[in-house]
Amino acid sequence: MRTKFHQNLDGLKEHLLVMAGLAEQAIQRSTEAYRTRDFSLCDLVFQSEPAINRMEREIDEMAFDLLATEQPMAVDLRFILAVIRINADIERVGDQAVNIAARALEMGAHANNDMPVDIPKLASLAQAMVRKALQSFIEADAEMATSVLAMDDEVDDMNDAAFSALSDLIKSQPELTPQALNVLIIARNLERVGDHATNIAEDVIFWVQGSDVRHSGNAPRVKA
Amino acid sequence: MRTKFHQNLDGLKEHLLVMAGLAEQAIQRSTEAYRTRDFSLCDLVFQSEPAINRMEREIDEMAFDLLATEQPMAVDLRFILAVIRINADIERVGDQAVNIAARALEMGAHANNDMPVDIPKLASLAQAMVRKALQSFIEADAEMATSVLAMDDEVDDMNDAAFSALSDLIKSQPELTPQALNVLIIARNLERVGDHATNIAEDVIFWVQGSDVRHSGNAPRVKA
Repeated sequence: MRTKFHQNLDGLKEHLLVMAGLAEQAIQRSTEAYRTRDFSLCDLVFQSEPAINRMEREIDEMAFDLLATEQPMAVDLRFILAVIRINADIERVGDQAVNIAARALEMGAHANNDMPVDIPKLASLAQAMVRKALQSFIEADAEMATSVLAMDDEVDDMNDAAFSALSDLIKSQPELTPQALNVLIIARNLERVGDHATNIAEDVIFWVQGSDVRHSGNAPRVKA
Repeated sequence: MRTKFHQNLDGLKEHLLVMAGLAEQAIQRSTEAYRTRDFSLCDLVFQSEPAINRMEREIDEMAFDLLATEQPMAVDLRFILAVIRINADIERVGDQAVNIAARALEMGAHANNDMPVDIPKLASLAQAMVRKALQSFIEADAEMATSVLAMDDEVDDMNDAAFSALSDLIKSQPELTPQALNVLIIARNLERVGDHATNIAEDVIFWVQGSDVRHSGNAPRVKA
């Protein structure tokens, strides 16, 4: 039988996953708005932001109360600290969605020219990272979380390639500058979504294994 | 007389401030490299990054150990949670410095054209936000922390203006695209430094007043 304390931990996890669902949906809608030029999706993204922010505060309060009243040890303490950090990353995924939706909306003011960046592909990769990171959180699976870290390089590479391709496009067709800059910012926002997924995966590993894997790999990678 | 526990809290604070000093210095050097084209400063920034990352891990470990062994209550618990969050923000300020240094270095490959953005001014504003946020942390001054929040609008406005001005420049002089894109990214990195300072200030308010001020103001602001 679960104790009251462990029921509360389950409640914290559930809240976090509901909020994560909202943030995932916001990324999905904002990139769909870009792809289809259905800008009603942008409004939905803007409307969901206050709910995500409210949930962030609620989850932090729940976590704080559990720390204050239960004084948890070891794995439970690591779990609550991981939730606090994951909470902040999910909220920032929501912020990226708002930025993407705003840029997609701005694209609507311009002709629908072909852009040399496959935003839907980059978006689906970034979303896959978030989904896998959350799955590793649900299943307390450090191995799965580790596999998320490897995916980040591909997202970074795509963002770097987008930067080059858009830079070339602007030079050869300066009249496309507004559209190209919007796409450049959207690519960068998606690259940041990948960073947040990486952070979440690292927090899962910290929780499950008790080890801190941050910055354990290579030198810092410079972002386009 | 301070108890051992409170000495440990002081030690945590000191560690955080040393790390913050490194991050502030990295921002200073990276923007100075941009201004003066003295690219030896970029190397110093790249070299300081591993130290900042190592300190982030150490501070998180110290905070974790204090939570695990002391089970602090109320203001002490809030202090430690604030340190954990501030720690992550300072590390990301260091990341922004690395990005700025890389862009400054890239600028060196191009002619030194005048750019329609006052990066040193934007940098000094973002740095002032970080410094004031840290000062409010040192002095446990929620009022000072609140004043940091108001400064963020000016940084956002400057970043928005940079985006427009650079967009216009690229359209009229497409041969300047590489330089303009580098400046656009640097402005955006500095705007993110301002966001991290805002986060730090909010954590100070949470610690000192026990209230969560995040997202209490206006609707989410869309970033250029």
